Amino acid sequence: MVYLTRRENFNGAHRLFNAAWSEEQNVAAFGKCANKNWHGHNFELFVTVKGKPESNTGFVINAHDLSKIVKKEVIEKLDHKNFNVDVPELKNTMPTIENVVMLIWRWIEPHLKDCQLHCIKLTETENIYVEYYGEP
Amino acid sequence: MVYLTRRENFNGAHRLFNAAWSEEQNVAAFGKCANKNWHGHNFELFVTVKGKPESNTGFVINAHDLSKIVKKEVIEKLDHKNFNVDVPELKNTMPTIENVVMLIWRWIEPHLKDCQLHCIKLTETENIYVEYYGEP
Amino acid sequence: MVYLTRRENFNGAHRLFNAAWSEEQNVAAFGKCANKNWHGHNFELFVTVKGKPESNTGFVINAHDLSKIVKKEVIEKLDHKNFNVDVPELKNTMPTIENVVMLIWRWIEPHLKDCQLHCIKLTETENIYVEYYGEP
Amino acid sequence: MVYLTRRENFNGAHRLFNAAWSEEQNVAAFGKCANKNWHGHNFELFVTVKGKPESNTGFVINAHDLSKIVKKEVIEKLDHKNFNVDVPELKNTMPTIENVVMLIWRWIEPHLKDCQLHCIKLTETENIYVEYYGEP
Amino acid sequence: MVYLTRRENFNGAHRLFNAAWSEEQNVAAFGKCANKNWHGHNFELFVTVKGKPESNTGFVINAHDLSKIVKKEVIEKLDHKNFNVDVPELKNTMPTIENVVMLIWRWIEPHLKDCQLHCIKLTETENIYVEYYGEP
Amino acid sequence: MVYLTRRENFNGAHRLFNAAWSEEQNVAAFGKCANKNWHGHNFELFVTVKGKPESNTGFVINAHDLSKIVKKEVIEKLDHKNFNVDVPELKNTMPTIENVVMLIWRWIEPHLKDCQLHCIKLTETENIYVEYYGEP
Repeated sequence: MVYLTRRENFNGAHRLFNAAWSEEQNVAAFGKCANKNWHGHNFELFVTVKGKPESNTGFVINAHDLSKIVKKEVIEKLDHKNFNVDVPELKNTMPTIENVVMLIWRWIEPHLKDCQLHCIKLTETENIYVEYYGEP
Repeated sequence: MVYLTRRENFNGAHRLFNAAWSEEQNVAAFGKCANKNWHGHNFELFVTVKGKPESNTGFVINAHDLSKIVKKEVIEKLDHKNFNVDVPELKNTMPTIENVVMLIWRWIEPHLKDCQLHCIKLTETENIYVEYYGEP
Repeated sequence: MVYLTRRENFNGAHRLFNAAWSEEQNVAAFGKCANKNWHGHNFELFVTVKGKPESNTGFVINAHDLSKIVKKEVIEKLDHKNFNVDVPELKNTMPTIENVVMLIWRWIEPHLKDCQLHCIKLTETENIYVEYYGEP
Repeated sequence: MVYLTRRENFNGAHRLFNAAWSEEQNVAAFGKCANKNWHGHNFELFVTVKGKPESNTGFVINAHDLSKIVKKEVIEKLDHKNFNVDVPELKNTMPTIENVVMLIWRWIEPHLKDCQLHCIKLTETENIYVEYYGEP
Repeated sequence: MVYLTRRENFNGAHRLFNAAWSEEQNVAAFGKCANKNWHGHNFELFVTVKGKPESNTGFVINAHDLSKIVKKEVIEKLDHKNFNVDVPELKNTMPTIENVVMLIWRWIEPHLKDCQLHCIKLTETENIYVEYYGEP
Repeated sequence: MVYLTRRENFNGAHRLFNAAWSEEQNVAAFGKCANKNWHGHNFELFVTVKGKPESNTGFVINAHDLSKIVKKEVIEKLDHKNFNVDVPELKNTMPTIENVVMLIWRWIEPHLKDCQLHCIKLTETENIYVEYYGEP
């Protein structure tokens, strides 16, 4: 059993703001991340799958094929987008990296054959990242 | 003569869009960067000054003082901001890193004493950065 | 269940030296790390917590709050310090990163609410790091 | 129980090519990696061991000793080598990082005393890496 | 005058070997780099151009267009290639990064309009890189 | 004319403290860097030389030979040392990176033949570095 990880990048904008709260509550909880005109990040995405290397190719999965899946299922939906506005699945959800990483799992998982999704890691800045292993 | 560089970080949103152009012209020139709901980046800023180390301290400039200048003159104005909307100096200017890096030079340069501003470097993604040396 | 990691930095000095041993034994075991006038490192600290994103904020923990805990409980005690001399908890302990990472766990763990400490990772150089998961 | 990781580097050449397949099948499966005159990479190797810090040294393992084992058992066999041609253990195996990482495990594992091999991580490019935990 | 840099990556194989020399001379000069079955690297390429930002776009050059030039003129010729065998321009030249970086300058320079080539930087490992400014 | 850069690493301890000043003046100027029991860093050193590639080797300088010079003339004198105590050349000098980088230039420059020293760059943390070009 070998774990293979593919990195991809995307850029996006978001705002952390709870519409049910007052401006003061939002600033207290989210600080500058609540700024009304948005801000953004260079996100780094690491997709880890696990499986046994296939004997003819030596691959758990062809990393090029994995990249194509991630680009089609994730990058096209998030790259250069506003997470609050442009992503239907995030409409009623706080667009934190915690919630985005779980969404990315749901987008990728059905498209993997012959190997198993193990972890999605999403980096927001050089100081903050999240990981999701599909645990409820 | 020694050159000292201080790195700082900030995040922001922008959109590359020329209001005098058609939608088609904008997409042709700016691609996904023209998306109307903004996108953003983790910007890395490198400020390089030059001077002779002062004999009592061994410093060209106290890096802590340089950091305070950069935070007050640049980071407070750009961090978690929308460059098109929140930055008066960019109102009639395309908010490309080329134009932002020249603006940052103008913001920092008057506040340096006993040393000279040499270069501003601004990184937009891991693949693109600009440098400005105050050349006309 | 999502895992969130926050990175912090600190610098310190230490010396690896067992007072019960001869000079020769110390040099054999610790090499240049036994040098009597100390040496030091830029340490990178990664604190990983796990929990369910809270529905109002989308946060496992507010990364800003986690940073405040780490700064108060760890960085203030280790940054720009001599681990052998300035850190009471290390007085009778070899100040290796193995022992420091377990100490950092004990410092942070009591201060986390609503989420659980999962891992402390401590990087000494670009070639060496340790991880501790609270395992006995 | 603390996990300690040591990083080492090596460079090598390889070609992904299945001699039982036609040229077309090889290009379809391996793309540019099938080019007949080889290509190569800067490989980064991370060796993670686990154990209890020994009380006299504070070490899980002396990182210098671990480095010596990795250099003797792995780096000398792979550095500046052609994996398809120069490495007997890979003669009848596709020299993918999946197969190389499992080979590295088998090379290192017998030489560890007082601590246990936990993970071998091998990075091929900044976008692709594999991990092996000794799982069948 | 602003300097803009675009990064691209490629992988290749090479061998440092002077056919006019004995095996002993080659090993003395090139060490492991003379190994007859090749070795390779992940090369990082940084292309820096300079010019005045155009007023309609704010660009010195559209970084996407610069990337297309670099991919067509450099990456297609070097990526996953054997520099000694597959690159006609290097046939009678030692394929060191010194010689490759000057070749890359000659490949890119004729294709730039409205801005000027300033520097080509080529990284061979994390410890070695070269820069060429077109100086004779 | 090609510029070649070689990176090396070393770790050291220092303290920024002016013995002619009061404790208060020292803390005001140097903050935590004045702590009396030392602190330390992982220093990254980049040595850049320039010259014409020699036709038989394609080298400005053999990077392996350059590494040997840097290790003998710099790393042996600074690695795992206390700059204030263990380095005679720094006895009456503030051991800032500004002063250390000029010292490193003086140590390396006499040992280069057939190429010319161009720049010494010294990184103290991920946020601060200095460069010296031999300018008076």
